[in-house]
Amino acid sequence: MKSLPKSANRLIQEFSNLPGIGRKTAQRLTFHILKSDVESVSELSRALIHVKERVHNCTICNGITEQSICSICEDTDRDENIICVVENSYDIIVFEKTNGFRGKYHVLGGTLSPLDGIGPDELSIESLLKRVHDGMEVVLATNSNVEGETTALYLAKILSKKQIVLSRLARGIPIGSDLGYMDSATLVRAMEGRTSV
Amino acid sequence: MKSLPKSANRLIQEFSNLPGIGRKTAQRLTFHILKSDVESVSELSRALIHVKERVHNCTICNGITEQSICSICEDTDRDENIICVVENSYDIIVFEKTNGFRGKYHVLGGTLSPLDGIGPDELSIESLLKRVHDGMEVVLATNSNVEGETTALYLAKILSKKQIVLSRLARGIPIGSDLGYMDSATLVRAMEGRTSV
Repeated sequence: MKSLPKSANRLIQEFSNLPGIGRKTAQRLTFHILKSDVESVSELSRALIHVKERVHNCTICNGITEQSICSICEDTDRDENIICVVENSYDIIVFEKTNGFRGKYHVLGGTLSPLDGIGPDELSIESLLKRVHDGMEVVLATNSNVEGETTALYLAKILSKKQIVLSRLARGIPIGSDLGYMDSATLVRAMEGRTSV
Repeated sequence: MKSLPKSANRLIQEFSNLPGIGRKTAQRLTFHILKSDVESVSELSRALIHVKERVHNCTICNGITEQSICSICEDTDRDENIICVVENSYDIIVFEKTNGFRGKYHVLGGTLSPLDGIGPDELSIESLLKRVHDGMEVVLATNSNVEGETTALYLAKILSKKQIVLSRLARGIPIGSDLGYMDSATLVRAMEGRTSV
């Protein structure tokens, strides 16, 4: 916008580059920054830099940590014999919030996507194979879309040579939802996977 | 979240402090930052600092600029004889987008709010009075809420001593809207202010 100072336009541009932030929100955020005191803006600016400087991947599970091993891998109270394989480190947060899983995780760092040049070597599959030993359970918790399913199928194939229990998250009707709003694919899966009461 | 590195939690907190950014969006933004390359994050971090270092208020209109006088006050093509008085510098952008106003602006920097300790001395009213001279028009374009109306009334009172045309933005039905969705206060104003065709 030509009536705005150059540095304000640049900040609007930078904010718009973030996911889910449109032009108008970027403007609103920039004017908020203009009104904020210098100290709180420096805090945000520093927090951005620090997160990049300090956070890296856990050498065991490929999740995020500031140490060499993340707090979950370090936690001896958690079950070593069950590994939940997820696409991204964000998925760990999603499971941890439920307080319902007490095993360990393994972050693939994406999904197989040959068109984008992402093959097995680009994902942390080698390190997963090293962690998997006979007698344990591996839960394939990739997303329920084409890429996630393909990656799960690939992992199932290479892991099937080991003496392990392989599982996949249950597919079905989400709790609290209305049948009338469900898509047919979900309904078919829910019917196939029906449980006895 | 205890399973997250400290610096990531801090960035989530910083993002949540921004207006309109909830906890979940802040998490999503933080994970986006974690995935972004260092250079693009530094850009955002620097843009935040630069906007605070470089942008200050125009010495004439109290809008924002990187120079001592803003581009609108400097523009000799604009009509010096009409000043649009707005609450915040963001409102200038709103009017400038319309391309429909070719006068100058004056930013009050807020509205009168005795309970928050904001009286006439906290707003840039003194500098407005210095700019207003006989024969010109002053448009009071404060917001159409209690604070905005109170401030407009106050300004109208002190400006009424001068030989100027005082005006206020028209109130009525927004273009393209459905009468059925209008509140009664707007409808009453629209009826009162009806124009002949």
